[in-house]
Amino acid sequence: MSDLPRHVEIHEEGPREGFQIEPGPIATADKIKLIDALSETGLKHIQVCSFVNTRLVPGWADAEAVVAGFTARPGIEYTPLFFNGNGLERALAFKDKLTINGAISLTASEGFTQKNLHRSHAENLEAMRKHALLQASKGVPVTRIGVMAAFGCNYQGDITPAQVIGTLKDGLAIAAETGAKIELFSLADTMGWATPARIERVIGAVRNHWPDMKLSLHLHDTRGMAVANAHAGLKLGVTRYDSTVGGLGGCPFAGQPKAAGNICTEELVLLCEEMGIQTGVDLDKLIEVGRLAEEIVGHQLPSELIHAGSLDAFRRKAA
Amino acid sequence: MSDLPRHVEIHEEGPREGFQIEPGPIATADKIKLIDALSETGLKHIQVCSFVNTRLVPGWADAEAVVAGFTARPGIEYTPLFFNGNGLERALAFKDKLTINGAISLTASEGFTQKNLHRSHAENLEAMRKHALLQASKGVPVTRIGVMAAFGCNYQGDITPAQVIGTLKDGLAIAAETGAKIELFSLADTMGWATPARIERVIGAVRNHWPDMKLSLHLHDTRGMAVANAHAGLKLGVTRYDSTVGGLGGCPFAGQPKAAGNICTEELVLLCEEMGIQTGVDLDKLIEVGRLAEEIVGHQLPSELIHAGSLDAFRRKAA
Repeated sequence: MSDLPRHVEIHEEGPREGFQIEPGPIATADKIKLIDALSETGLKHIQVCSFVNTRLVPGWADAEAVVAGFTARPGIEYTPLFFNGNGLERALAFKDKLTINGAISLTASEGFTQKNLHRSHAENLEAMRKHALLQASKGVPVTRIGVMAAFGCNYQGDITPAQVIGTLKDGLAIAAETGAKIELFSLADTMGWATPARIERVIGAVRNHWPDMKLSLHLHDTRGMAVANAHAGLKLGVTRYDSTVGGLGGCPFAGQPKAAGNICTEELVLLCEEMGIQTGVDLDKLIEVGRLAEEIVGHQLPSELIHAGSLDAFRRKAA
Repeated sequence: MSDLPRHVEIHEEGPREGFQIEPGPIATADKIKLIDALSETGLKHIQVCSFVNTRLVPGWADAEAVVAGFTARPGIEYTPLFFNGNGLERALAFKDKLTINGAISLTASEGFTQKNLHRSHAENLEAMRKHALLQASKGVPVTRIGVMAAFGCNYQGDITPAQVIGTLKDGLAIAAETGAKIELFSLADTMGWATPARIERVIGAVRNHWPDMKLSLHLHDTRGMAVANAHAGLKLGVTRYDSTVGGLGGCPFAGQPKAAGNICTEELVLLCEEMGIQTGVDLDKLIEVGRLAEEIVGHQLPSELIHAGSLDAFRRKAA
């Protein structure tokens, strides 16, 4: 009945996703403190910052200072996010400390591409072709195709598995043209449309076309389905997940500053470990970091688990 | 691969669970307003109040006024909660308006029974035998065995499937002795220990012993697993779920007044409807009631969906 993996690869995006969206300014020292604390939990992949237009995203104006400031531990991959040549240049200045992975980032929804990037899908393909060439020219390996809005879109409604397949084919065409060797498809539920049934349909369709491609899920808990969606992914043997400690990254709706963000890393770890799937993460330490994140942002985070405590903590008390 | 049901029976417990736990006094008129609003959503089972010791649970001192005040709609079952003879008498005073279902309520954890009821499991069995006889003597059918802490316990740690089976056997022995005809086992994750894997193990064990018994799940979202657990239950063909609108019923931890409570009815409905499982509920109306519940309690509720809005609302906009 299942293809349960024996272990999963968790990509922590709390620092990057979280501090991008918080309304108040977060001190550089606090960002560094969180990254250093995450490095102690057993996580092996931490996205530490976003090299983006500082006018549009003032929360990451201090990206350079954060990267300079945190302490890199051996065996942990620290990654930046970047979208264009300027961001890539800023990232490359830290190429000794950061792992810089290239990507072809597409969106399965034309409506979202228009709204978010002010481009048509065709224009975005052209931009991504140039960006793939640029990354290759800088020696950055382009190994990943990312598909945003792969499960539905606030602007376009339902997204069919065929639209996701079409988008991946577009990405593979760019890869072929630019000499990129794709090793991973990352499917993002950017606006919280996924449900377990939809995860099964989309992943089933992708697997039909590319049975051996490694898959990653980037899940948002916008409508409370993220953990159930991760569970559906695990049952299908998906071995890589993005997540954020504490559930950092909530999109502040009008009057709802505590709306849910990404799937919480702690809850993902609990889910996996209780299924016998290894994460390599010390959950009690991670819960402490979730509480630290809550202190840093100064308001309650969506994670239920950081408020309730781990099962192991109660097991030890009961023993 | 699955035994997906075609429809599920949702038992809304928001008014009872929610108003029991809220720290501030909730006006009787507001409780009535919420029940009347729930009656318009398509829900067919609504637990409206708790007839409990008003000194211990001041939030339900107005149970009689609430029951007298709401407008009963045809086709909807309105139920009370009660634990002893006094509560049953108070409920029976409204037997024309309320559906009074009897139960044998046990706990799979001796530690929780001691802590919560100040009784040993053996003493609790004796109390339940007397309570079953009393219910029968009043003409209240005892058709349900409830098992609290069926998936784990903060005081005792893990609970094995064998302990759940033993507790159900104890309940069936009481039923046999007191002439009760049991039609339903209700398994409660009272302290948020369940994970999908554990749901599968416990339900598998119960089904091995009683393949034809109807099962119900009462899930709490204490550690963020509730929707994933409901999904595991649906995959196993469980057709009945308790839930609360907005996720009312959060257990206020020290300094964490917004800690999670029961599984949110809206999120359960979304999960089911997107899997093609009928609930009979109008989700957009229910989301409005969740927002009303939030207004009534005066603070944000755990439901993510009431903040994000339904998929159908966005589908209509996108169309």
